[in-house]
Amino acid sequence: MQRKKVVIDTKIEAAKTKKGLLLVHTGIGKGKSTAAFGLLARALGHGMKAAVIQFIKSRSDSGEERFFRNAANLNWHVMGDGFTWETQNPEQDLASARKAWEMACTYLRDETVNLIILDEFTYALKYGWLTIDEVSTALNNRPPMQHVVITGRAAPPALIELADTVSEANLVKHAFQAGVQAMPGIEW
Amino acid sequence: MQRKKVVIDTKIEAAKTKKGLLLVHTGIGKGKSTAAFGLLARALGHGMKAAVIQFIKSRSDSGEERFFRNAANLNWHVMGDGFTWETQNPEQDLASARKAWEMACTYLRDETVNLIILDEFTYALKYGWLTIDEVSTALNNRPPMQHVVITGRAAPPALIELADTVSEANLVKHAFQAGVQAMPGIEW
Repeated sequence: MQRKKVVIDTKIEAAKTKKGLLLVHTGIGKGKSTAAFGLLARALGHGMKAAVIQFIKSRSDSGEERFFRNAANLNWHVMGDGFTWETQNPEQDLASARKAWEMACTYLRDETVNLIILDEFTYALKYGWLTIDEVSTALNNRPPMQHVVITGRAAPPALIELADTVSEANLVKHAFQAGVQAMPGIEW
Repeated sequence: MQRKKVVIDTKIEAAKTKKGLLLVHTGIGKGKSTAAFGLLARALGHGMKAAVIQFIKSRSDSGEERFFRNAANLNWHVMGDGFTWETQNPEQDLASARKAWEMACTYLRDETVNLIILDEFTYALKYGWLTIDEVSTALNNRPPMQHVVITGRAAPPALIELADTVSEANLVKHAFQAGVQAMPGIEW
């Protein structure tokens, strides 16, 4: 038997608090953004209202964006310019990140929004486009039952400290290591 | 700059092989099934045909099941009886797992199906309801471009060996540790 799981399940059953959670999916393994999009499907299935803000991604032809585009109760914002080493334009990166963050903040003040996904958000902290102080303040002041999911590599310790649930995706192996190319439905 | 990511991206660009992938999401952290459901949304957004077989879950009131229920190109099968320590009925568990596996095998022989999700499948191996040999044979003989995603804790080494991409969700922290109860939209 899997005793550890039984103990965890008993703890879950004993838990009584209800609150809006801050969830962080970090690490270099696969499954951070997809975990957020799976949660999005889960929340929408319960009739919750949600918003997605993509901080880095600039393409609107992703499978997830196409699939969720017409979902009820959802606003999806592709706000990025691609990664900074692609754009080679730090001013543009900063401006895009600040614009995305302003958009995020409007949702973080709206108690009718049950779930906010800040996709690839950690890079905005990593590159100093946003400070952890302004981010912490906005997250702490959000509506008490609002859930927020943040994805991206190298979540800073202050963000992990602030979070309720943190999952780190460890890269055990990846198909690209065997020369397999990125494919639709898998990587985008 | 994030040199490691640049190196990885360069490798991805250099990769030329196209094939159906076996992806495994394991570990005790949050985000295994949700990562699979995010991939599902991604694949469906590209017009791919998919099937989900849930090996343990017995409830049909999950947000994900409700959300995806009416999606085109998708068959969703809830085949489980709950966990074995809930049912206390090993014969029933075995019978349910075998029935779910037979269902999985019909999809694993169908080249029109682009993506198959075997959710919480690892437990079927852990409890000996299925052998790794029969599973490996079916996976190896599937249509060459068909993607399969397997989720669940404690994926056995032979399954990891067989997989193309393996991500292990490490539990950094979980809200239940702070007494927060499981909530709709987050845990189911």
